[in-house]
Amino acid sequence: MNKLQEFQEIIGYHFRQEGLLRQALTHSSYANERHMKKLYNNERLEFLGDAVLEIVTSEHLYQLHPEWAEGELTRVRASIVCEQTLAFCTRALHLGDYVLLSKGEEHTGGREKIGSLGCVRGGDGCDLSGWRICTRKGIYSSFCVA
Amino acid sequence: MNKLQEFQEIIGYHFRQEGLLRQALTHSSYANERHMKKLYNNERLEFLGDAVLEIVTSEHLYQLHPEWAEGELTRVRASIVCEQTLAFCTRALHLGDYVLLSKGEEHTGGREKIGSLGCVRGGDGCDLSGWRICTRKGIYSSFCVA
Repeated sequence: MNKLQEFQEIIGYHFRQEGLLRQALTHSSYANERHMKKLYNNERLEFLGDAVLEIVTSEHLYQLHPEWAEGELTRVRASIVCEQTLAFCTRALHLGDYVLLSKGEEHTGGREKIGSLGCVRGGDGCDLSGWRICTRKGIYSSFCVA
Repeated sequence: MNKLQEFQEIIGYHFRQEGLLRQALTHSSYANERHMKKLYNNERLEFLGDAVLEIVTSEHLYQLHPEWAEGELTRVRASIVCEQTLAFCTRALHLGDYVLLSKGEEHTGGREKIGSLGCVRGGDGCDLSGWRICTRKGIYSSFCVA
């Protein structure tokens, strides 16, 4: 089993377009080192992934707690979609082991600073036919602690 | 044609669940004045709508500009999903004319301060079977100027 397959086993979701997962796991330092195409790294997917995390979390809370007012929903969303929670989930999914880093980054402890969950969510957002499907997939439950 | 139908003509989208649009247009002051159920106003939909605006805009820019790096995408998204643009669209859609306000709010110029586009987007997010559909609907083009 290769690394990409291994990671998909961990997150419980198999990409229809595995190339998107590969891109989501490609740090810009690695792409630069290998002289890959300028935008072939995980940064654009991170942009998208931030919004996917936001909508998936929002919808989940909205549906799960019809008795909560806006303030409560906003407060809990902020506590879920935050650096601390993402770092926790990144560790829980062993995501750091699967990100492609340059040798330089590797030597300066870059793997400890990985926060690529957003990129992966960007990838699976692209991969699926609707954002809502993400909610129903196990990958979501891996980071939602509310 | 009643007011709800009129507004749906303006935005070019007809809600399958018209009750969601009614809720999206119900200001908390109106709901309080009429002793409606505690959470029957547009605030929860506004919470959801913020995230809908974010994902719809993000996906649109991501797909439309494959040549843009993350920084450019983020900059343009911030210029679209901001108070100024939403206020512009609110005026363009004459949304202020359709929001239900209390008499008190009405008398103190509340109608001039309406910024309910997010609530409407929350409503249509609930109404549709996937967020992506929003992108394809005319309602989106009414606020996206990028």
